Amino acid sequence: MKTQLDIIKIGGNLIDDESSLTNFLNHFSANKTLKILVHGGGRSATQLSERLGIKTQMLEGRRITNEEDLEVVTMVYAGLINKKIVAELQHYGCNAIGLSGCDMNSILAKKRHHPYIDFGFVGDIEKVNVSNIDLLLKNGFCPVFSAITHDGRGQLLNTNADTVAAQLAISFSETYNVRLLYCFEKNGVLSNPEDDFSVIPFLDKDLYQELKTAGAISKGMIPKLDNCFEALVMGVSEINIGGSGMMNPIAFNFTKLSL
Amino acid sequence: MKTQLDIIKIGGNLIDDESSLTNFLNHFSANKTLKILVHGGGRSATQLSERLGIKTQMLEGRRITNEEDLEVVTMVYAGLINKKIVAELQHYGCNAIGLSGCDMNSILAKKRHHPYIDFGFVGDIEKVNVSNIDLLLKNGFCPVFSAITHDGRGQLLNTNADTVAAQLAISFSETYNVRLLYCFEKNGVLSNPEDDFSVIPFLDKDLYQELKTAGAISKGMIPKLDNCFEALVMGVSEINIGGSGMMNPIAFNFTKLSL
Repeated sequence: MKTQLDIIKIGGNLIDDESSLTNFLNHFSANKTLKILVHGGGRSATQLSERLGIKTQMLEGRRITNEEDLEVVTMVYAGLINKKIVAELQHYGCNAIGLSGCDMNSILAKKRHHPYIDFGFVGDIEKVNVSNIDLLLKNGFCPVFSAITHDGRGQLLNTNADTVAAQLAISFSETYNVRLLYCFEKNGVLSNPEDDFSVIPFLDKDLYQELKTAGAISKGMIPKLDNCFEALVMGVSEINIGGSGMMNPIAFNFTKLSL
Repeated sequence: MKTQLDIIKIGGNLIDDESSLTNFLNHFSANKTLKILVHGGGRSATQLSERLGIKTQMLEGRRITNEEDLEVVTMVYAGLINKKIVAELQHYGCNAIGLSGCDMNSILAKKRHHPYIDFGFVGDIEKVNVSNIDLLLKNGFCPVFSAITHDGRGQLLNTNADTVAAQLAISFSETYNVRLLYCFEKNGVLSNPEDDFSVIPFLDKDLYQELKTAGAISKGMIPKLDNCFEALVMGVSEINIGGSGMMNPIAFNFTKLSL
Protein backbone atom coordinates (compact mmCIF):
# COMPACT_ATOMS: atom_id res chain seq x y z
CA MET A 1 0.00 0.00 0.00
CA LYS A 2 1.19 3.50 -0.81
CA THR A 3 2.18 5.89 1.99
CA GLN A 4 -0.24 8.74 2.71
CA LEU A 5 0.80 12.27 1.63
CA ASP A 6 -1.30 15.36 2.38
CA ILE A 7 -0.96 18.36 0.08
CA ILE A 8 -2.68 21.40 1.54
CA LYS A 9 -3.26 24.70 -0.18
CA ILE A 10 -4.10 27.81 1.82
CA GLY A 11 -5.16 31.11 0.35
CA GLY A 12 -7.55 34.00 0.48
CA ASN A 13 -8.41 35.66 3.78
CA LEU A 14 -6.89 32.75 5.66
CA ILE A 15 -3.42 34.15 4.99
CA ASP A 16 -4.32 37.77 5.72
CA ASP A 17 -6.03 37.00 9.01
CA GLU A 18 -3.37 36.33 11.64
CA SER A 19 -5.52 34.34 14.08
CA SER A 20 -7.02 32.10 11.37
CA LEU A 21 -3.51 31.47 10.02
CA THR A 22 -2.15 30.65 13.48
CA ASN A 23 -5.09 28.31 14.13
CA PHE A 24 -4.48 26.59 10.81
CA LEU A 25 -0.68 26.27 11.22
CA ASN A 26 -1.12 24.86 14.70
CA HIS A 27 -3.37 22.02 13.52
CA PHE A 28 -1.22 21.58 10.41
CA SER A 29 1.90 21.01 12.58
CA ALA A 30 0.07 18.54 14.82
CA ASN A 31 -0.80 16.37 11.81
CA LYS A 32 2.08 13.90 11.60
CA THR A 33 1.30 12.59 8.09
CA LEU A 34 3.88 13.45 5.41
CA LYS A 35 2.75 16.80 4.07
CA ILE A 36 3.37 19.68 1.68
CA LEU A 37 1.92 23.16 2.12
CA VAL A 38 1.20 25.50 -0.81
CA HIS A 39 0.22 29.11 -0.21
CA GLY A 40 -1.10 31.98 -2.25
CA GLY A 41 -1.12 35.53 -0.96
CA GLY A 42 -2.82 37.71 -3.55
CA ARG A 43 -4.13 40.43 -1.28
CA SER A 44 -0.78 41.35 0.27
CA ALA A 45 0.74 41.62 -3.21
CA THR A 46 -2.07 43.93 -4.30
CA GLN A 47 -1.57 46.04 -1.16
CA LEU A 48 2.18 46.37 -1.78
CA SER A 49 1.55 47.24 -5.44
CA GLU A 50 -0.84 49.98 -4.34
CA ARG A 51 1.72 51.42 -1.91
CA LEU A 52 4.28 51.45 -4.73
CA GLY A 53 1.80 53.04 -7.14
CA ILE A 54 1.73 49.99 -9.41
CA LYS A 55 -1.66 49.21 -10.95
CA THR A 56 -2.71 45.56 -10.76
CA GLN A 57 -4.37 44.22 -13.91
CA MET A 58 -6.56 41.14 -13.52
CA LEU A 59 -8.02 39.12 -16.40
CA GLU A 60 -10.18 36.02 -16.02
CA GLY A 61 -9.12 35.87 -12.36
CA ARG A 62 -5.45 35.84 -13.30
CA ARG A 63 -3.00 38.61 -12.55
CA ILE A 64 -1.34 40.12 -15.62
CA THR A 65 2.28 40.08 -14.52
CA ASN A 66 4.69 42.60 -15.99
CA GLU A 67 8.28 42.91 -14.76
CA GLU A 68 7.37 45.20 -11.88
CA ASP A 69 4.45 42.96 -10.83
CA LEU A 70 6.73 39.93 -10.92
CA GLU A 71 9.12 41.67 -8.53
CA VAL A 72 6.23 42.42 -6.18
CA VAL A 73 4.83 38.86 -6.14
CA THR A 74 8.32 37.38 -5.76
CA MET A 75 8.95 39.64 -2.76
CA VAL A 76 5.57 38.98 -1.15
CA TYR A 77 4.96 35.29 -1.94
CA ALA A 78 8.50 33.83 -1.98
CA GLY A 79 9.83 36.26 0.62
CA LEU A 80 7.49 37.69 3.22
CA ILE A 81 4.62 35.19 3.36
CA ASN A 82 6.73 32.09 2.76
CA LYS A 83 9.28 32.90 5.46
CA LYS A 84 6.69 34.06 7.98
CA ILE A 85 4.82 30.76 7.58
CA VAL A 86 8.03 28.70 7.80
CA ALA A 87 9.21 30.52 10.95
CA GLU A 88 5.81 29.98 12.59
CA LEU A 89 5.78 26.28 11.65
CA GLN A 90 9.26 25.90 13.14
CA HIS A 91 7.87 27.37 16.35
CA TYR A 92 5.18 24.65 16.38
CA GLY A 93 7.78 21.92 15.91
CA CYS A 94 7.21 21.33 12.19
CA ASN A 95 10.55 21.27 10.37
CA ALA A 96 9.41 23.33 7.38
CA ILE A 97 11.47 24.41 4.39
CA GLY A 98 10.21 27.21 2.15
CA LEU A 99 10.54 26.64 -1.57
CA SER A 100 9.71 28.31 -4.84
CA GLY A 101 9.75 26.39 -8.12
CA CYS A 102 13.33 27.49 -8.89
CA ASP A 103 14.63 25.94 -5.64
CA MET A 104 15.99 22.45 -6.40
CA ASN A 105 14.49 23.00 -9.86
CA SER A 106 11.36 21.68 -8.18
CA ILE A 107 8.67 23.17 -10.48
CA LEU A 108 9.43 24.00 -14.09
CA ALA A 109 6.94 26.19 -15.95
CA LYS A 110 6.57 27.79 -19.35
CA LYS A 111 5.62 31.41 -20.02
CA ARG A 112 1.98 31.38 -21.08
CA HIS A 113 1.33 32.03 -24.75
CA HIS A 114 -2.19 33.16 -25.49
CA PRO A 115 -3.42 34.10 -28.98
CA TYR A 116 -4.83 37.50 -27.89
CA ILE A 117 -3.68 38.34 -24.38
CA ASP A 118 -0.15 38.92 -23.12
CA PHE A 119 -0.27 37.62 -19.56
CA GLY A 120 3.36 38.69 -19.05
CA PHE A 121 5.40 36.55 -16.67
CA VAL A 122 2.68 34.01 -15.94
CA GLY A 123 3.82 30.40 -15.98
CA ASP A 124 2.00 27.18 -16.77
CA ILE A 125 3.55 24.16 -15.08
CA GLU A 126 5.43 21.73 -17.29
CA LYS A 127 7.15 19.46 -14.80
CA VAL A 128 7.33 18.72 -11.08
CA ASN A 129 10.67 17.21 -9.99
CA VAL A 130 9.18 14.69 -7.59
CA SER A 131 12.47 13.05 -6.55
CA ASN A 132 14.05 16.34 -5.40
CA ILE A 133 11.05 17.27 -3.26
CA ASP A 134 10.75 13.67 -2.05
CA LEU A 135 14.31 13.80 -0.65
CA LEU A 136 13.04 16.45 1.78
CA LEU A 137 9.89 14.49 2.72
CA LYS A 138 11.87 11.29 3.29
CA ASN A 139 14.23 13.16 5.64
CA GLY A 140 11.51 14.62 7.82
CA PHE A 141 11.15 18.07 6.28
CA CYS A 142 7.88 19.72 5.29
CA PRO A 143 8.10 21.63 1.98
CA VAL A 144 6.19 24.93 1.95
CA PHE A 145 5.68 26.21 -1.60
CA SER A 146 5.05 29.72 -2.78
CA ALA A 147 3.46 29.90 -6.24
CA ILE A 148 6.56 31.33 -7.91
CA THR A 149 8.03 28.96 -10.53
CA HIS A 150 10.79 29.28 -13.14
CA ASP A 151 11.43 28.36 -16.77
CA GLY A 152 14.90 26.84 -16.26
CA ARG A 153 16.48 29.65 -18.27
CA GLY A 154 16.74 32.16 -15.46
CA GLN A 155 13.22 33.56 -15.63
CA LEU A 156 10.93 33.48 -12.60
CA LEU A 157 7.22 33.07 -13.36
CA ASN A 158 4.00 33.73 -11.47
CA THR A 159 1.79 30.64 -11.26
CA ASN A 160 -1.64 30.14 -9.78
CA ALA A 161 -1.31 28.58 -6.31
CA ASP A 162 -4.35 26.28 -6.77
CA THR A 163 -2.69 24.89 -9.89
CA VAL A 164 0.64 24.42 -8.08
CA ALA A 165 -1.16 22.35 -5.43
CA ALA A 166 -3.09 20.31 -8.01
CA GLN A 167 0.02 19.62 -10.11
CA LEU A 168 2.03 18.59 -7.06
CA ALA A 169 -0.83 16.27 -6.05
CA ILE A 170 -1.04 14.70 -9.51
CA SER A 171 2.75 14.24 -9.76
CA PHE A 172 3.04 12.64 -6.32
CA SER A 173 0.09 10.29 -6.95
CA GLU A 174 2.36 7.82 -8.72
CA THR A 175 4.29 7.11 -5.53
CA TYR A 176 1.97 8.25 -2.73
CA ASN A 177 -1.66 8.00 -1.76
CA VAL A 178 -2.36 11.73 -2.08
CA ARG A 179 -5.04 13.66 -0.25
CA LEU A 180 -5.41 17.21 -1.57
CA LEU A 181 -6.97 19.79 0.74
CA TYR A 182 -7.97 23.32 -0.21
CA CYS A 183 -8.36 25.59 2.82
CA PHE A 184 -9.80 29.06 2.44
CA GLU A 185 -12.08 31.55 4.17
CA LYS A 186 -15.32 29.57 3.61
CA ASN A 187 -16.14 26.24 5.22
CA GLY A 188 -16.49 24.53 1.84
CA VAL A 189 -18.26 24.84 -1.49
CA LEU A 190 -21.52 26.66 -0.84
CA SER A 191 -24.84 25.91 -2.53
CA ASN A 192 -25.77 29.54 -1.82
CA PRO A 193 -22.75 31.93 -2.00
CA GLU A 194 -24.59 34.33 0.35
CA ASP A 195 -25.06 31.69 3.06
CA ASP A 196 -21.90 30.50 4.84
CA PHE A 197 -23.84 27.62 6.36
CA SER A 198 -24.85 26.13 3.00
CA VAL A 199 -21.76 23.91 2.72
CA ILE A 200 -22.25 21.01 0.29
CA PRO A 201 -20.86 17.92 2.07
CA PHE A 202 -20.41 15.80 -1.09
CA LEU A 203 -19.91 17.15 -4.57
CA ASP A 204 -19.61 14.88 -7.61
CA LYS A 205 -19.29 15.87 -11.25
CA ASP A 206 -23.03 15.66 -11.93
CA LEU A 207 -23.99 17.86 -9.00
CA TYR A 208 -21.21 20.29 -9.97
CA GLN A 209 -22.65 20.60 -13.51
CA GLU A 210 -26.12 21.12 -12.07
CA LEU A 211 -25.01 23.86 -9.65
CA LYS A 212 -22.95 25.57 -12.35
CA THR A 213 -25.94 25.61 -14.68
CA ALA A 214 -28.13 26.99 -11.88
CA GLY A 215 -25.54 29.74 -11.25
CA ALA A 216 -24.98 28.67 -7.61
CA ILE A 217 -21.30 27.98 -8.30
CA SER A 218 -19.60 30.75 -10.24
CA LYS A 219 -16.56 32.98 -10.66
CA GLY A 220 -13.38 31.95 -8.81
CA MET A 221 -14.81 28.60 -7.72
CA ILE A 222 -15.07 27.34 -11.32
CA PRO A 223 -11.34 27.17 -12.24
CA LYS A 224 -10.66 25.85 -8.70
CA LEU A 225 -13.19 23.02 -9.06
CA ASP A 226 -12.19 22.27 -12.66
CA ASN A 227 -8.61 21.84 -11.38
CA CYS A 228 -9.88 19.53 -8.64
CA PHE A 229 -11.92 17.24 -10.88
CA GLU A 230 -8.98 17.02 -13.30
CA ALA A 231 -6.72 16.04 -10.38
CA LEU A 232 -9.16 13.26 -9.34
CA VAL A 233 -9.13 11.91 -12.91
CA MET A 234 -5.31 12.02 -12.85
CA GLY A 235 -5.06 9.79 -9.79
CA VAL A 236 -5.33 11.98 -6.69
CA SER A 237 -7.08 9.81 -4.06
CA GLU A 238 -9.14 12.38 -2.18
CA ILE A 239 -9.91 16.09 -2.44
CA ASN A 240 -11.58 18.19 0.24
CA ILE A 241 -12.37 21.91 0.30
CA GLY A 242 -12.95 23.72 3.59
CA GLY A 243 -11.97 26.35 6.15
CA SER A 244 -9.03 26.97 8.44
CA GLY A 245 -10.27 24.34 10.92
CA MET A 246 -10.01 21.61 8.30
CA MET A 247 -6.67 20.34 9.61
CA ASN A 248 -8.33 19.82 12.98
CA PRO A 249 -8.78 16.04 13.23
CA ILE A 250 -12.37 16.51 14.41
CA ALA A 251 -13.33 18.85 11.55
CA PHE A 252 -16.64 17.79 10.03
CA ASN A 253 -17.66 20.79 8.00
CA PHE A 254 -16.13 20.69 4.51
CA THR A 255 -16.86 19.60 0.95
CA LYS A 256 -15.62 16.22 -0.21
CA LEU A 257 -15.27 15.89 -3.98
CA SER A 258 -15.71 12.74 -6.02
CA LEU A 259 -15.98 11.89 -9.71
CA MET B 1 41.64 14.17 4.43
CA LYS B 2 38.56 16.35 4.72
CA THR B 3 36.50 17.20 1.60
CA GLN B 4 36.80 20.75 0.28
CA LEU B 5 33.83 23.10 0.81
CA ASP B 6 33.74 26.64 -0.57
CA ILE B 7 31.56 29.21 1.21
CA ILE B 8 31.22 32.37 -0.84
CA LYS B 9 29.63 35.61 0.26
CA ILE B 10 28.60 38.23 -2.29
CA GLY B 11 27.47 41.70 -1.47
CA GLY B 12 27.68 45.38 -2.23
CA ASN B 13 27.57 46.63 -5.80
CA LEU B 14 28.18 43.12 -7.07
CA ILE B 15 24.51 42.29 -6.46
CA ASP B 16 23.14 45.55 -7.82
CA ASP B 17 25.17 45.40 -11.04
CA GLU B 18 23.54 42.86 -13.35
CA SER B 19 26.58 42.15 -15.55
CA SER B 20 28.96 41.71 -12.57
CA LEU B 21 26.44 39.37 -10.94
CA THR B 22 26.02 37.32 -14.13
CA ASN B 23 29.79 37.11 -14.54
CA PHE B 24 30.14 35.94 -10.95
CA LEU B 25 27.29 33.40 -11.09
CA ASN B 26 28.67 31.95 -14.31
CA HIS B 27 32.09 31.24 -12.77
CA PHE B 28 30.45 30.14 -9.53
CA SER B 29 28.39 27.50 -11.39
CA ALA B 30 31.45 26.24 -13.29
CA ASN B 31 33.26 25.57 -9.99
CA LYS B 32 32.42 21.93 -9.22
CA THR B 33 33.62 21.97 -5.59
CA LEU B 34 30.87 21.58 -2.95
CA LYS B 35 29.73 25.11 -2.26
CA ILE B 36 27.39 27.42 -0.36
CA LEU B 37 26.52 30.94 -1.46
CA VAL B 38 25.55 33.71 0.97
CA HIS B 39 24.24 37.03 -0.29
CA GLY B 40 23.51 40.44 1.15
CA GLY B 41 21.50 43.03 -0.73
CA GLY B 42 21.44 46.19 1.37
CA ARG B 43 21.01 48.74 -1.39
CA SER B 44 17.87 47.21 -2.88
CA ALA B 45 16.29 47.11 0.58
CA THR B 46 17.12 50.78 1.11
CA GLN B 47 15.64 51.62 -2.30
CA LEU B 48 12.41 49.76 -1.53
CA SER B 49 12.20 51.45 1.89
CA GLU B 50 12.55 54.84 0.21
CA ARG B 51 9.78 54.05 -2.28
CA LEU B 52 7.56 53.05 0.65
CA GLY B 53 8.47 56.18 2.60
CA ILE B 54 10.22 54.19 5.35
CA LYS B 55 13.31 55.86 6.81
CA THR B 56 16.34 53.56 7.17
CA GLN B 57 18.27 54.02 10.40
CA MET B 58 21.89 52.81 10.43
CA LEU B 59 24.09 52.57 13.50
CA GLU B 60 27.68 51.34 13.56
CA GLY B 61 27.14 49.97 10.03
CA ARG B 62 24.13 47.92 11.16
CA ARG B 63 20.58 48.53 10.10
CA ILE B 64 18.15 49.24 12.95
CA THR B 65 15.31 46.89 12.07
CA ASN B 66 11.81 47.72 13.23
CA GLU B 67 8.81 45.63 12.16
CA GLU B 68 8.35 47.48 8.88
CA ASP B 69 12.08 47.26 8.07
CA LEU B 70 12.02 43.54 8.79
CA GLU B 71 9.20 43.09 6.29
CA VAL B 72 11.21 45.00 3.70
CA VAL B 73 14.44 43.01 4.16
CA THR B 74 12.52 39.72 4.24
CA MET B 75 10.85 40.62 0.94
CA VAL B 76 14.05 41.83 -0.71
CA TYR B 77 16.67 39.40 0.66
CA ALA B 78 14.70 36.17 1.14
CA GLY B 79 12.33 36.86 -1.78
CA LEU B 80 13.52 38.93 -4.69
CA ILE B 81 17.32 38.63 -4.57
CA ASN B 82 17.41 35.03 -3.34
CA LYS B 83 15.02 33.71 -5.98
CA LYS B 84 16.58 35.74 -8.80
CA ILE B 85 20.01 34.29 -7.96
CA VAL B 86 18.65 30.74 -7.64
CA ALA B 87 16.80 30.95 -10.98
CA GLU B 88 19.95 32.25 -12.70
CA LEU B 89 22.11 29.51 -11.14
CA GLN B 90 19.61 26.89 -12.35
CA HIS B 91 20.05 28.33 -15.85
CA TYR B 92 23.83 27.78 -15.57
CA GLY B 93 23.32 24.17 -14.49
CA CYS B 94 23.91 24.68 -10.76
CA ASN B 95 21.15 22.95 -8.77
CA ALA B 96 20.68 25.75 -6.26
CA ILE B 97 18.22 25.90 -3.37
CA GLY B 98 17.46 29.23 -1.72
CA LEU B 99 17.32 29.23 2.07
CA SER B 100 16.82 31.59 4.95
CA GLY B 101 17.73 30.61 8.50
CA CYS B 102 14.16 29.48 9.28
CA ASP B 103 14.20 26.95 6.43
CA MET B 104 15.13 23.50 7.84
CA ASN B 105 15.80 25.42 11.05
CA SER B 106 19.23 25.95 9.46
CA ILE B 107 20.37 29.09 11.32
CA LEU B 108 19.07 29.94 14.76
CA ALA B 109 19.67 33.43 16.09
CA LYS B 110 18.83 35.50 19.13
CA LYS B 111 17.43 39.03 19.13
CA ARG B 112 20.33 41.33 19.98
CA HIS B 113 20.29 42.88 23.44
CA HIS B 114 22.42 45.98 23.77
CA PRO B 115 22.68 48.04 26.97
CA TYR B 116 21.87 51.36 25.23
CA ILE B 117 20.63 50.74 21.70
CA ASP B 118 17.50 48.91 20.58
CA PHE B 119 18.56 47.34 17.30
CA GLY B 120 15.03 45.95 16.81
CA PHE B 121 14.76 42.66 14.97
CA VAL B 122 18.49 42.14 14.53
CA GLY B 123 19.70 38.61 15.22
CA ASP B 124 23.03 37.27 16.45
CA ILE B 125 23.65 33.69 15.37
CA GLU B 126 23.44 31.02 18.07
CA LYS B 127 23.55 27.79 16.11
CA VAL B 128 24.05 26.48 12.58
CA ASN B 129 22.30 23.13 11.95
CA VAL B 130 25.13 21.61 9.94
CA SER B 131 23.51 18.21 9.37
CA ASN B 132 20.36 19.66 7.77
CA ILE B 133 22.35 21.80 5.34
CA ASP B 134 24.79 18.94 4.73
CA LEU B 135 21.92 16.71 3.53
CA LEU B 136 21.51 19.14 0.63
CA LEU B 137 25.25 19.30 -0.14
CA LYS B 138 25.59 15.50 -0.07
CA ASN B 139 22.72 15.18 -2.55
CA GLY B 140 24.17 17.57 -5.09
CA PHE B 141 22.34 20.77 -4.17
CA CYS B 142 23.93 24.16 -3.66
CA PRO B 143 22.43 26.11 -0.72
CA VAL B 144 22.02 29.85 -1.35
CA PHE B 145 21.48 31.76 1.89
CA SER B 146 19.85 35.11 2.43
CA ALA B 147 20.84 36.76 5.72
CA ILE B 148 17.39 36.35 7.29
CA THR B 149 17.47 34.06 10.34
CA HIS B 150 14.91 33.11 13.01
CA ASP B 151 14.72 32.64 16.77
CA GLY B 152 12.86 29.31 16.74
CA ARG B 153 9.82 30.94 18.32
CA GLY B 154 8.30 32.26 15.14
CA GLN B 155 10.29 35.49 14.89
CA LEU B 156 12.34 36.26 11.77
CA LEU B 157 15.52 38.27 12.38
CA ASN B 158 17.84 40.36 10.23
CA THR B 159 21.45 39.19 10.43
CA ASN B 160 24.59 40.58 8.86
CA ALA B 161 25.44 38.56 5.74
CA ASP B 162 29.22 38.61 6.42
CA THR B 163 28.52 37.06 9.81
CA VAL B 164 26.22 34.42 8.29
CA ALA B 165 29.05 33.40 5.93
CA ALA B 166 31.66 33.37 8.72
CA GLN B 167 29.45 31.34 11.08
CA LEU B 168 28.60 28.81 8.36
CA ALA B 169 32.33 28.52 7.60
CA ILE B 170 33.23 27.98 11.26
CA SER B 171 30.44 25.43 11.79
CA PHE B 172 31.35 23.40 8.69
CA SER B 173 35.08 23.40 9.54
CA GLU B 174 34.61 20.40 11.83
CA THR B 175 33.67 18.16 8.91
CA TYR B 176 35.01 19.98 5.84
CA ASN B 177 38.14 21.76 4.73
CA VAL B 178 36.46 25.18 4.38
CA ARG B 179 37.59 27.96 2.09
CA LEU B 180 35.72 31.21 2.78
CA LEU B 181 35.58 33.77 -0.03
CA TYR B 182 34.25 37.31 0.26
CA CYS B 183 33.40 38.83 -3.13
CA PHE B 184 32.49 42.49 -3.40
CA GLU B 185 32.96 45.51 -5.67
CA LYS B 186 36.70 45.96 -4.96
CA ASN B 187 39.44 43.54 -6.01
CA GLY B 188 40.54 42.96 -2.42
CA VAL B 189 41.59 44.82 0.71
CA LEU B 190 43.18 48.09 -0.43
CA SER B 191 46.19 49.74 1.21
CA ASN B 192 44.84 53.03 -0.16
CA PRO B 193 41.01 53.17 -0.22
CA GLU B 194 41.20 55.76 -3.05
CA ASP B 195 43.28 53.49 -5.29
CA ASP B 196 41.53 50.39 -6.67
CA PHE B 197 44.88 48.99 -7.78
CA SER B 198 46.39 48.98 -4.28
CA VAL B 199 45.18 45.44 -3.45
CA ILE B 200 47.16 43.86 -0.60
CA PRO B 201 47.97 40.30 -1.76
CA PHE B 202 48.67 38.88 1.73
CA LEU B 203 47.28 40.24 4.96
CA ASP B 204 48.19 38.80 8.34
CA LYS B 205 47.15 40.02 11.79
CA ASP B 206 50.26 42.16 12.27
CA LEU B 207 49.90 43.97 8.97
CA TYR B 208 46.18 44.41 9.68
CA GLN B 209 46.97 46.12 13.01
CA GLU B 210 49.53 48.32 11.31
CA LEU B 211 47.15 49.41 8.54
CA LYS B 212 44.34 50.03 11.02
CA THR B 213 46.60 52.22 13.14
CA ALA B 214 47.70 54.13 10.03
CA GLY B 215 44.02 54.64 9.09
CA ALA B 216 44.40 52.86 5.73
CA ILE B 217 41.80 50.26 6.74
CA SER B 218 38.69 51.75 8.26
CA LYS B 219 34.89 51.81 8.46
CA GLY B 220 33.04 48.81 7.01
CA MET B 221 36.24 46.83 6.41
CA ILE B 222 36.99 46.57 10.13
CA PRO B 223 34.03 44.38 11.26
CA LYS B 224 34.46 42.35 8.05
CA LEU B 225 38.14 41.67 8.75
CA ASP B 226 37.56 41.10 12.47
CA ASN B 227 35.02 38.43 11.47
CA CYS B 228 37.55 36.87 9.11
CA PHE B 229 40.42 36.65 11.58
CA GLU B 230 38.05 35.15 14.15
CA ALA B 231 36.98 32.54 11.58
CA LEU B 232 40.63 31.63 10.90
CA VAL B 233 41.21 31.15 14.63
CA MET B 234 38.08 28.96 14.74
CA GLY B 235 39.38 26.54 12.15
CA VAL B 236 38.46 27.91 8.70
CA SER B 237 41.29 26.79 6.38
CA GLU B 238 41.55 29.71 3.98
CA ILE B 239 39.95 33.14 3.58
CA ASN B 240 40.22 35.33 0.49
CA ILE B 241 38.65 38.72 -0.25
CA GLY B 242 38.27 39.96 -3.83
CA GLY B 243 36.09 41.01 -6.75
CA SER B 244 33.46 39.35 -8.95
CA GLY B 245 36.17 37.61 -11.00
CA MET B 246 37.41 35.74 -7.94
CA MET B 247 35.55 32.55 -8.83
CA ASN B 248 37.37 32.54 -12.16
CA PRO B 249 39.99 29.79 -11.76
CA ILE B 250 42.67 32.09 -13.22
CA ALA B 251 41.89 34.98 -10.85
CA PHE B 252 45.09 36.35 -9.35
CA ASN B 253 44.03 39.68 -7.92
CA PHE B 254 42.66 39.27 -4.39
CA THR B 255 43.69 39.45 -0.73
CA LYS B 256 44.62 36.24 1.05
CA LEU B 257 44.32 36.41 4.84
CA SER B 258 46.42 34.53 7.37
CA LEU B 259 46.92 34.66 11.11
